[in-house]
Amino acid sequence: MKPVVPVLTALAVAGAFATAAHAQSPDRQIKYRQGILQGMGWHMGVLGAMAKGERPYDKDVAARSAKFVNDLAAMPWDGFGPGSDAGAPTKAKPEIWKDKAKFDRLAQEMQSETPKLVAAANSGDVAQLRAAVGAVGKACNNCHDAFQKQ
Amino acid sequence: MKPVVPVLTALAVAGAFATAAHAQSPDRQIKYRQGILQGMGWHMGVLGAMAKGERPYDKDVAARSAKFVNDLAAMPWDGFGPGSDAGAPTKAKPEIWKDKAKFDRLAQEMQSETPKLVAAANSGDVAQLRAAVGAVGKACNNCHDAFQKQ
Repeated sequence: MKPVVPVLTALAVAGAFATAAHAQSPDRQIKYRQGILQGMGWHMGVLGAMAKGERPYDKDVAARSAKFVNDLAAMPWDGFGPGSDAGAPTKAKPEIWKDKAKFDRLAQEMQSETPKLVAAANSGDVAQLRAAVGAVGKACNNCHDAFQKQ
Repeated sequence: MKPVVPVLTALAVAGAFATAAHAQSPDRQIKYRQGILQGMGWHMGVLGAMAKGERPYDKDVAARSAKFVNDLAAMPWDGFGPGSDAGAPTKAKPEIWKDKAKFDRLAQEMQSETPKLVAAANSGDVAQLRAAVGAVGKACNNCHDAFQKQ
């Protein structure tokens, strides 16, 4: 039987999401940021494999993964709220919250590289792609070196 | 000391990503799709809370989360490859791989709703937002009802 009031039914579904997200527990923040960063890692992996010649170069696949990396680059930061240094297992160092200005700067530097990755992936030139993947990878690494437990 | 060949260093970083992603183990696929879907849940939660009046309506916040939901909507599917019905703990039912056509159709229906969510969020009209959140939530639910273990 179809629900008589599908919009209200659907809002109840959205409400179920709401409860979880509105609480924004440290646990949930940690899992959120890990999920997004893992997604970036997946698509950087696709691009890195092409850049290194371990996977055949395919412009469409590269453009798609570069778009995803750039889209995802804006997202993890909501998950680094105050108090989210501990909860679910995390490799985030407490220094993130002690030197938020530096963390934010490195996060911003990464986000300034990802649009160039999109442009390079759409150029069809594998040398450009290689350079842009390297630059984004370096920006990832700069932040991981400073703020991620090894 | 700065590395002499920063691009190569950075490519080594990208290479580290590559190893993991190129393998695309069932485990990694499961974690990837869960991370992306969890990100969607987070931002649907922000929008659902506004739609239900549990959080003050803010057009900019709504537009941002709607964009993220729409961006993420294209991404989980890479993580539902053959053989990824088992590995890391997962609520995905084996029916996904037995009736891939239906799964793909429901996935597509969800993706046809998320651009409308972006438009509604940018309209500044909370009633439009509410309807669009409901429609996306219903599309999420249709797939979860059919293919997710409760």
